[in-house]
Amino acid sequence: MTVNRRILLVRRPHGMPMADDFAIVEGPVPEPAEGEMLIRTLYLSVDPYMRGRMNDARSYVPPFALNEVVEGGVIGQVVASRHTAYRAGDIVVGTLGWADYNLSDGRGLRRLDPSAAPITAALGVLGMPGLTAYVGTLDIGRVQTGETFVVSAAAGAVGSVAGQIAKIHGCRVVGIAGSDEKCRWVTEELGFDAAVNYRAAGSLVAALREACPNGVDVYFDNVGGDVTDAVLPLLNDFARIALCGQIALYNLEKPDMGPRNWSYLLIHRATLQGFIVRDHAHRAGQAYADLARWIQEGRIRWREHIVEGLENTIDAFLGLFRGDNIGKQLVKVADPA
Amino acid sequence: MTVNRRILLVRRPHGMPMADDFAIVEGPVPEPAEGEMLIRTLYLSVDPYMRGRMNDARSYVPPFALNEVVEGGVIGQVVASRHTAYRAGDIVVGTLGWADYNLSDGRGLRRLDPSAAPITAALGVLGMPGLTAYVGTLDIGRVQTGETFVVSAAAGAVGSVAGQIAKIHGCRVVGIAGSDEKCRWVTEELGFDAAVNYRAAGSLVAALREACPNGVDVYFDNVGGDVTDAVLPLLNDFARIALCGQIALYNLEKPDMGPRNWSYLLIHRATLQGFIVRDHAHRAGQAYADLARWIQEGRIRWREHIVEGLENTIDAFLGLFRGDNIGKQLVKVADPA
Repeated sequence: MTVNRRILLVRRPHGMPMADDFAIVEGPVPEPAEGEMLIRTLYLSVDPYMRGRMNDARSYVPPFALNEVVEGGVIGQVVASRHTAYRAGDIVVGTLGWADYNLSDGRGLRRLDPSAAPITAALGVLGMPGLTAYVGTLDIGRVQTGETFVVSAAAGAVGSVAGQIAKIHGCRVVGIAGSDEKCRWVTEELGFDAAVNYRAAGSLVAALREACPNGVDVYFDNVGGDVTDAVLPLLNDFARIALCGQIALYNLEKPDMGPRNWSYLLIHRATLQGFIVRDHAHRAGQAYADLARWIQEGRIRWREHIVEGLENTIDAFLGLFRGDNIGKQLVKVADPA
Repeated sequence: MTVNRRILLVRRPHGMPMADDFAIVEGPVPEPAEGEMLIRTLYLSVDPYMRGRMNDARSYVPPFALNEVVEGGVIGQVVASRHTAYRAGDIVVGTLGWADYNLSDGRGLRRLDPSAAPITAALGVLGMPGLTAYVGTLDIGRVQTGETFVVSAAAGAVGSVAGQIAKIHGCRVVGIAGSDEKCRWVTEELGFDAAVNYRAAGSLVAALREACPNGVDVYFDNVGGDVTDAVLPLLNDFARIALCGQIALYNLEKPDMGPRNWSYLLIHRATLQGFIVRDHAHRAGQAYADLARWIQEGRIRWREHIVEGLENTIDAFLGLFRGDNIGKQLVKVADPA
């Protein structure tokens, strides 16, 4: 009999999560009831936002429950179905547990067409990160031709797509990333106009000033902290900041202190807007159609950073905070049948 | 012969301005050339934003020039005119020098009708501060009936009007101010639902939480710093922050450090927008019509804090940062003829 491994959150992390905050438990593979199906995990997604759900804090999604399976984006294959709309063999994507197998009644699931695009794209450029990039760049950032667009975590799943969307819309695009390899990828492969390695720049402000001779009109922020401090002095009048993430702050044990920075927003009449992709689900149809077209036209490229084995999920998740990944971080759990 | 006193900026302030940063010089009263008029100052306005113009820094208005007269809002009376549109005796308002007399070619000036409203209102509720309150509350803050509206510097020229506008639009209105007397004024005279004295509250967050049982939907910020830190944890989803001023920061000698606070904006998908009233001049007609009607209906009240004598202008200006004023701070220079 096959075993089902499930990753539980057993302790709320204090600061950077540790392996002991999680437990991998083994159990029998469950049987679908009437109206349910059994899904085998092929790939699962680790995303920075999941860190917030590990805290016991009021937020836009409820916290993960202790001693329950951690849930996130999963691509799986139906292995047994008592659901009228799905058959064994179907490839699906949705929010499911970090486990070898999950039961589902189909809510929040959608079927993938493996002939249309590589299935893993459904967790990246044609999934939540791609929609996030689309909404943040176009609806929140409201990029205009000729403007300068800066994105932090530029080589990440969201930042790399956001920069390419801004480029398609006629912006000068500048990425901020944490290694020379990441900077080379976004400039040489993705077509960004410039990239700054924040770990190597003596003065990040000076490096950004050189990369943005006409100032910054739109800042797509995934990071916060010191990186964002360096962008703000370059804001142009009526700049927009699409506030998507603050990964630099997620693992702090107490609130970080930084220079008070609202004066830049005031003087330049900037708009800073926090957004969460699930408030923008109504944009998904248009976004995925546009993104698919841009991919087909060769105007959007992506890359995946794939770790093998469910047992390596926690390390892959922690790697997000170390900056291990270039492109979308995934865990491969099994091959499709 | 009458003397014209003029207040010059002779040194850029470092931190809190000092009397020695300015000089009062005496000279002859100038003669209007063809197309000009001579205006005697009746009242002049001291406003927090003027502190920024004393720095040699890129901003939305050029810095004051050294050894030149400081310019601000002035109500004056035409004493001699070679301008076709103005006659001696006319009462006018505009941006003019901190001086007993100014020449003007009429640019940026408007004539006041002393029978319509007390002339000093043109520097307050029916002038720049009133328009600022109107735009910030309605266009930037987008207040809706039933929402909770919090305003800092609630007893100031802008905050006191902003709160009353929010009240007219059906909000629960909570003011933050620096004395019990100010708090009493905004609640007992202006109709705010609650007010918190930030200097007396043990925990400002706790005091605000009590005053805002349903959280904060719109925050009209004139202050920044610690006061703003205490408001952010109370933001509701999709809150708006109208960023109007940061008076707590204007006189700092080096950037102030505070807790990094963008996570609140992200989690609650808040919008923070810096605004400067002169970008919204197209709203003046509607704003002044609405404000005049609300005044007539007794729904907007105001108060002026009047210091006598041009020679006391600097002290009146510094008083803004000490929190001396309740309502609009003015300097009375002369009576109308």
